[in-house]
Amino acid sequence: MTAPRFPTVAVAGVGLIGGSFVAALRQAGQVGRVLGMGRNPLSLEKAQSLGLIDAIATPQEAARADLIMLAAPVGATGPLLGALAPYLGPNTIITDAGSTKSDVVASARAALGKHIGQFVPGHPIAGAERTGPDAAQAALYQDRTVILTPLPENTMADVRAVRDAWTYCGAHVIDMDADAHDQALAAVSHLPHLLASVFMTHIVRSPDAARRLALAGSGFRDFTRIAAGSPEMWRDIFQSNRSAMLTEIAALRDVLDESERAIRARDTAALQTLLQTAADARHQWEKERRA
Amino acid sequence: MTAPRFPTVAVAGVGLIGGSFVAALRQAGQVGRVLGMGRNPLSLEKAQSLGLIDAIATPQEAARADLIMLAAPVGATGPLLGALAPYLGPNTIITDAGSTKSDVVASARAALGKHIGQFVPGHPIAGAERTGPDAAQAALYQDRTVILTPLPENTMADVRAVRDAWTYCGAHVIDMDADAHDQALAAVSHLPHLLASVFMTHIVRSPDAARRLALAGSGFRDFTRIAAGSPEMWRDIFQSNRSAMLTEIAALRDVLDESERAIRARDTAALQTLLQTAADARHQWEKERRA
Repeated sequence: MTAPRFPTVAVAGVGLIGGSFVAALRQAGQVGRVLGMGRNPLSLEKAQSLGLIDAIATPQEAARADLIMLAAPVGATGPLLGALAPYLGPNTIITDAGSTKSDVVASARAALGKHIGQFVPGHPIAGAERTGPDAAQAALYQDRTVILTPLPENTMADVRAVRDAWTYCGAHVIDMDADAHDQALAAVSHLPHLLASVFMTHIVRSPDAARRLALAGSGFRDFTRIAAGSPEMWRDIFQSNRSAMLTEIAALRDVLDESERAIRARDTAALQTLLQTAADARHQWEKERRA
Repeated sequence: MTAPRFPTVAVAGVGLIGGSFVAALRQAGQVGRVLGMGRNPLSLEKAQSLGLIDAIATPQEAARADLIMLAAPVGATGPLLGALAPYLGPNTIITDAGSTKSDVVASARAALGKHIGQFVPGHPIAGAERTGPDAAQAALYQDRTVILTPLPENTMADVRAVRDAWTYCGAHVIDMDADAHDQALAAVSHLPHLLASVFMTHIVRSPDAARRLALAGSGFRDFTRIAAGSPEMWRDIFQSNRSAMLTEIAALRDVLDESERAIRARDTAALQTLLQTAADARHQWEKERRA
């Protein structure tokens, strides 16, 4: 039996994302001891009883780990790094799983100062509609994409270590520019989440919501699934990716207005063109995804 | 072996909805002979080779069936009934599977005149993102809800026969007023479909659509699944349910604007309230659905 790549890993926020990360590393035999830290003692105790973490740690203890994974809502990045910074081990590598990157990097720079090179930003593209340590599973990242947005200050060795960690989890790792990441994710992840939530809020506010909801079928089920995600986490994501979100919302509204005009004007040709464009794109996406 | 309840059933449009209906009736032993009619000869031949229909019929032949199921796009209701009306058997019952009811009933009244009592309007709440006879399956309606919106002119016996047909398919049948049906379905079925299509069209029109789509994950997959539905069918539904759709779009846009204002103003409390409302409603819906 070979020694694990990471003798000690600390995870801040042991929910679906952080818990699955350490579960996968453990399954791969690439971690020795796992420390958990976070704001919620009940959640940490649960994580420990599930065997996701070996011990609950203070920031001072966690800061000496070989690898620290930040898996709390992105708004907590600054405070978390601020708590870790004074005790940070010289060879400790920090990474994160935040859904936005430019804003996270700015927080990290402010909190870490000259130690910013120890922070390798990342983002696993994995479903997050379920939350908490109970939802964690070693297989979550199998065949999923993880995006790293390395900083000029990172060493190749540290970026390599984070890439390897994700590879042990079964993920495919790609590198991107942080801004390009944020705009792309605003489009294909954050905007759908906002729309699903906006739609669900609209429905539940309607006077006969109960009757409407009783008639909802499988299309509704799938369309609204992501609206069940953690409000706190998504509030942070929208805020953190504010500029890209505002661009996306404006562009989406233009197409919504276009569809409304077509329905109002009984312009069936325009309506069909819009629907055909959507259906063709969705079929094509499914096909490429399977390829 | 008892005789089937419906010696001859004719189905206009042998795709997912119509094909599954006759497949389920056949599996239940409640149909003798199944006739198919439609505009697409290839689709009809396919349906015959799959054993969904026993023969391809002219309107004149189909019009003498014991039960006729209209399962073509709702815009075809008037023309279809117009073609059947001159030959309609005196005891033939017609029903439909259209996603809108007020507009369908108006078309039926115009086409059938004094025979309108033979038309029992219906709507099975079942996924329709796959299309064509290949997608048909006897189990599609198992435990699904079917809404009937009976007319004052219907006989109790005819409504009972249509209700029984759906019950043989494994569905739960409820009665509603046509206008209430249309408003409720606009909200929980038609609006999500429009939003998914509008979103997908927005994405594919963006300059870096390919890169964005390559990063789309499971949230995107579920959110956009319904955008793959038949453009022709949904164009007809939106047009047919025009008034309810315009009401729903306006109300949805109000909530979208509210979310945009919150993001723009960095009003995290308002944003969280909106997201919490959505998440709570979605969790509650899932819970009640499972109960």
